Amino acid sequence: MATSRLKVVLDQERSYDIRVGCKLLENLGTHLRELSSAKKAVIITDSNVGSLYLETTKKALVEAEFEVYDLTIPAGEESKNIEVATELWDALAMLNIGRDGLLLALGGGVVGDITGFIAATYMRGIDFVQLPTSLLAMVDSSVGGKTAINISAGKNLVGSFYQPIYVAADLDTLVTLPDAEWDNGFAEIAKSAIIDGGEFYEWVLNNVSSLVAHDDDALKQVIVRALTFKARVVIADEKESGLRECLNYGHTFAHALEQVSGYSISHGKAVAEGMRFAARLAVEVIGSSNDFVKAQDDLFDAIGLSPVAESFSSDELFECMFGDKKVRGGNLRFVFACGPGEWKVEIVDPDLAKIYIILWEQARM
Amino acid sequence: MATSRLKVVLDQERSYDIRVGCKLLENLGTHLRELSSAKKAVIITDSNVGSLYLETTKKALVEAEFEVYDLTIPAGEESKNIEVATELWDALAMLNIGRDGLLLALGGGVVGDITGFIAATYMRGIDFVQLPTSLLAMVDSSVGGKTAINISAGKNLVGSFYQPIYVAADLDTLVTLPDAEWDNGFAEIAKSAIIDGGEFYEWVLNNVSSLVAHDDDALKQVIVRALTFKARVVIADEKESGLRECLNYGHTFAHALEQVSGYSISHGKAVAEGMRFAARLAVEVIGSSNDFVKAQDDLFDAIGLSPVAESFSSDELFECMFGDKKVRGGNLRFVFACGPGEWKVEIVDPDLAKIYIILWEQARM
Repeated sequence: MATSRLKVVLDQERSYDIRVGCKLLENLGTHLRELSSAKKAVIITDSNVGSLYLETTKKALVEAEFEVYDLTIPAGEESKNIEVATELWDALAMLNIGRDGLLLALGGGVVGDITGFIAATYMRGIDFVQLPTSLLAMVDSSVGGKTAINISAGKNLVGSFYQPIYVAADLDTLVTLPDAEWDNGFAEIAKSAIIDGGEFYEWVLNNVSSLVAHDDDALKQVIVRALTFKARVVIADEKESGLRECLNYGHTFAHALEQVSGYSISHGKAVAEGMRFAARLAVEVIGSSNDFVKAQDDLFDAIGLSPVAESFSSDELFECMFGDKKVRGGNLRFVFACGPGEWKVEIVDPDLAKIYIILWEQARM
Repeated sequence: MATSRLKVVLDQERSYDIRVGCKLLENLGTHLRELSSAKKAVIITDSNVGSLYLETTKKALVEAEFEVYDLTIPAGEESKNIEVATELWDALAMLNIGRDGLLLALGGGVVGDITGFIAATYMRGIDFVQLPTSLLAMVDSSVGGKTAINISAGKNLVGSFYQPIYVAADLDTLVTLPDAEWDNGFAEIAKSAIIDGGEFYEWVLNNVSSLVAHDDDALKQVIVRALTFKARVVIADEKESGLRECLNYGHTFAHALEQVSGYSISHGKAVAEGMRFAARLAVEVIGSSNDFVKAQDDLFDAIGLSPVAESFSSDELFECMFGDKKVRGGNLRFVFACGPGEWKVEIVDPDLAKIYIILWEQARM
């Protein structure tokens, strides 16, 4: 299967290639040598991914005459914190990595987010490469330059916008992907298709069964479609001041849900639930149709994203929502979709939001 | 005395005003309201500066109808660390500061550096204002967008490039400046004058006595000259990839000296010593004249920057120098001035650098 290539052009100075295909890790070295003159390359990975793909990646870099180091963090969202970040900064300093050093994020969203943050802040910024190994990271966190860590007050509250020099999504790594991670990826894909609407939305509706069967060609097509959508949004609005906000569809409720659940609910499941929540609230706030609520529910059900069954305290959910970073100047902002390809941002009366959170809680009692 | 105004224009989106004059803090509100629609403003200051100028600043912001909060960190370089940064991130989250919040750095370089880093990374970047209250911060750290914290492996190893929306250097705050801080400011001014050469260098030579006497008008003139120089360099090279490197004159040795002394030597004294060191090494490396070494020594002596008398281990100094961030790909880079307005960057043979460090150590035994 041929590799698909995309290019994100932010401006003259900052643009980067994205490749989607097979055998990209083992053939990484040659292309990377064209992009970087670094002597030292440091692979940051986690304890799950490292045991599967670290050796292949190291070998490819050594062949391209990089001096290769690797740093492994514990797998899981809990690693995306300031203590791990501090250990990584210290480790880079101990390895005498200079401003011309190169970092590589080999793993899912957690590895990508923290590695991006380290690359953005070590010596005020060094080059880095995203090697996403999960479907979610391939379609989401590896594009857009959002880097972050979590602090006790909330998820992704500390970070920066910082672009990689190259992104390689190697489909071969999806063979080992756990079921929950497939859910995460499909939630992101469904969100993108709903926001984009049109051909992308129709394509997903028509190919749900191939996607659920993990058909290689369908996956490559959908990743490229999702990336193309995301890159288009990112280029149009690099700093999330406007257009890019559509990508937060489902996130206002999702972040609260993740926090209240102590992150026991996966990001993808939480975002799907957040979109279900937002669609219902949209009927009240912007007068969108119940037909769309139903269509969206059906898509999520077909792609395997069943509703969250567990209940959580509406008081706690509301509290988390108000502490969320999407709150500007004390207002509660929601991204709403009123149909495929139609979205808008609205300020929501906190009292009204509270009512819908209580309804959500009661439906699960 | 009229306020001087400068403007740093980086590109269409990112430009900011710098004002130098009297009564700027008490008149801060009106101008800031034109620049920011934030509801909440958080002043970050330190235990020394806060007791002197926090109330004035708060009053000005309250008058301009900001909801004002303040966070005070312990005075001193030791506060520029990840623990204090974490406390500040947490505090901002607890105050429910959103992406539209405003931070103000009221203090010297430490407060400016850490506040800038917090502003750059909290929610991936919020607006901030520099209110430098030391001469060094006025001529140096408040312009150029370098933000940073220290980690155990070295000074300023973590940070980012991030620009303030406004800089106000209120000369009235210099009344309370301690002697050591004057040294810091004068070292930076002397460095800028040497690198810039020409009229700026001549002006400093001709006005050393007024500067040392803390004459108001001379100070304003020299701050504006130093800022103009710095802003010109920053505009030409926002990312320090080339031209901006001249600002590191004296820093290769200075950083090592600061680290080995456990930061007991002030930054300004260390940089002056670093320039003395670099000038001597330049005679060997690039064949510059001994006359310039003498002229530079005389200027430093006249402006009150006497040589560092204390000795430190040459082995430790060398070790620190190799771990310094100016080392690229294992090479030792030095900024050299061969005369006023003439500078260049050279890779220096580590063995040769070591000899000069030993000579430096022996001269103090």
